[in-house]
Amino acid sequence: MRAAIFNGPRDIRIGDRPDPVVVEATDAVVRVVLGCVCGSDLWYYRGESDHAVGSIGHEFIGIVEDVGDQVTGLSKGDLVIAPFIYSDMTCPHCANGSTISCVQGGTFGNGTTDGGQGEAVRVPLAQSTLVRVPGSGHSDAVLRSLLTLSDVMATGHHAAVSAGVKAGDTVAVVGDGAVGLCAVLAAQRLGAERIVALSRHPERQRLAKAFGATDIVEARGAEAEHAVLELTGGIGADAVLECVGTAQSIATAAATARPGSTIGIVGVPHGEVPFIGTFFRNVAWRGGPAPARIYIPDLLGDVLEGRIDPGRVFDYETDLEHVADAYRAMDERRAIKSLLRIGAI
Amino acid sequence: MRAAIFNGPRDIRIGDRPDPVVVEATDAVVRVVLGCVCGSDLWYYRGESDHAVGSIGHEFIGIVEDVGDQVTGLSKGDLVIAPFIYSDMTCPHCANGSTISCVQGGTFGNGTTDGGQGEAVRVPLAQSTLVRVPGSGHSDAVLRSLLTLSDVMATGHHAAVSAGVKAGDTVAVVGDGAVGLCAVLAAQRLGAERIVALSRHPERQRLAKAFGATDIVEARGAEAEHAVLELTGGIGADAVLECVGTAQSIATAAATARPGSTIGIVGVPHGEVPFIGTFFRNVAWRGGPAPARIYIPDLLGDVLEGRIDPGRVFDYETDLEHVADAYRAMDERRAIKSLLRIGAI
Repeated sequence: MRAAIFNGPRDIRIGDRPDPVVVEATDAVVRVVLGCVCGSDLWYYRGESDHAVGSIGHEFIGIVEDVGDQVTGLSKGDLVIAPFIYSDMTCPHCANGSTISCVQGGTFGNGTTDGGQGEAVRVPLAQSTLVRVPGSGHSDAVLRSLLTLSDVMATGHHAAVSAGVKAGDTVAVVGDGAVGLCAVLAAQRLGAERIVALSRHPERQRLAKAFGATDIVEARGAEAEHAVLELTGGIGADAVLECVGTAQSIATAAATARPGSTIGIVGVPHGEVPFIGTFFRNVAWRGGPAPARIYIPDLLGDVLEGRIDPGRVFDYETDLEHVADAYRAMDERRAIKSLLRIGAI
Repeated sequence: MRAAIFNGPRDIRIGDRPDPVVVEATDAVVRVVLGCVCGSDLWYYRGESDHAVGSIGHEFIGIVEDVGDQVTGLSKGDLVIAPFIYSDMTCPHCANGSTISCVQGGTFGNGTTDGGQGEAVRVPLAQSTLVRVPGSGHSDAVLRSLLTLSDVMATGHHAAVSAGVKAGDTVAVVGDGAVGLCAVLAAQRLGAERIVALSRHPERQRLAKAFGATDIVEARGAEAEHAVLELTGGIGADAVLECVGTAQSIATAAATARPGSTIGIVGVPHGEVPFIGTFFRNVAWRGGPAPARIYIPDLLGDVLEGRIDPGRVFDYETDLEHVADAYRAMDERRAIKSLLRIGAI
């Protein structure tokens, strides 16, 4: 099959990998319909995080092609969403809601395992990992939104859930990438009354507003912090969603959270968390990789019933053969998030 | 009046300070009955944190001597508990539960303001700060326990509340100082089923067990982490209470928290929080200085009705003239916590 191959920083090429087959009785083989490039893939692309040479990509929806003998509830032809980690849903961590730490779990597209930026994927623990999408004949817009549940919308939601966003809150969202925009949408979905989006890009500001942002702060650093504090009467935000992971964005989150609040942090921290500064204000830090598998069923209903449309974060698209362009568009910030049209529905 | 004076590291002396009087209409003057030395005072004593020259001490119970014209609900002769921060209870932070960040609030014994290690204290915002103790003729044991609500028991409770301890949990408590021991008691009070206390001192182990610890880990560092993980079947604790604040204790807390759990941190962090290590396990950090004023009414009932006896953390006592001995006993770890008998009840 054809698949994206990570050869090193700034070297993503299309190539060939073996066609996946069912190996374990708990496997399924999924033919990928839509894939995409994650903000975290950019860390690898830019050489800021390590990635093994080989397969890449961990966000996809697709059609079940084959299932192992122990897989029930999934059949050939089913449209499924794959969370970005596979998990058994029965180990002590899964049972406690931490599918990310599943004792049998693992990642897609890690160089060796099949990636979502490829024509097909062997999915281990398929029955407990894949979420079947009910119905048929879904519009392209719905399919794009379903794809976001694989990671980016689940991650934005995780920021909001981790920060404890509740009805009536004032929420500050640090980061106008796809995760930050999804976090705006998630905060709105959870009933936030005021959502302050930090963004300096007009097209991202527009989408943030469409997703529910009530205020835009165009500054960065100390100026942004001052602006958020001013917007909140000097108090700070009831919840801050940190969706970048740089030292500057982490510092901005720390400075704008009101005493006693929680910073929902989902950007992989590439800078130090200034804990001592938040400690004296009882500001908490909660977050990490999203337990997407836990969130998908809830969010799925909202997508199918048209209440949320996170697929709007895709503003660039191409096919698998042009995967390198998909990365470049995001690296050069020409795209918020790049969609890959890989197979027929 | 007589009061302890901080002159610099390892130089606490008894001296004279002006008798406090009502200055603002919202003040009260409280004659101190019992005071004590806090673990945080030791950071100053050892020169590890800065403290202004002058008054010191922020934990006390006492008798109201005088009140300003705007103070209602408090009268001369009332026995009161002073939380370690005064607060107005009406500002946006107080109204949100963060009395520590009160916009009008402040600290006792900061070099200038009267300290709890002295014969009397002018208490600003007295009506919203002081908690009147109902009844009379309380035993010495009850008075000692009431004193702990001023800070140490409120802080142990804050660790447990911050970590979200709930019925049936397995809780690890890092630190066998007075705060750690109170955290054990708080965890038991909140229904923890298993409480693992990290302690290498037989007399502290005994008190930890009396307060509800079910398991004692005598090791430190990697050995302690291994032991806690082994006790929890490799999963980690449902909640970890960090009650020290050193780099080692923070690292132990990080290593023993199960995925998705929260570390309740109340030891002022003197080491870096290893956030990236906990991020990938979705382990949260929540804590800071305790909003004692919020907790006292709840805890007070439990003390008066004999359900908790945190006053047992005082295992050394002396009078105000010997305050330097009280510090030395704690500094040399001969005492868990030193009580100061300052005035008659």
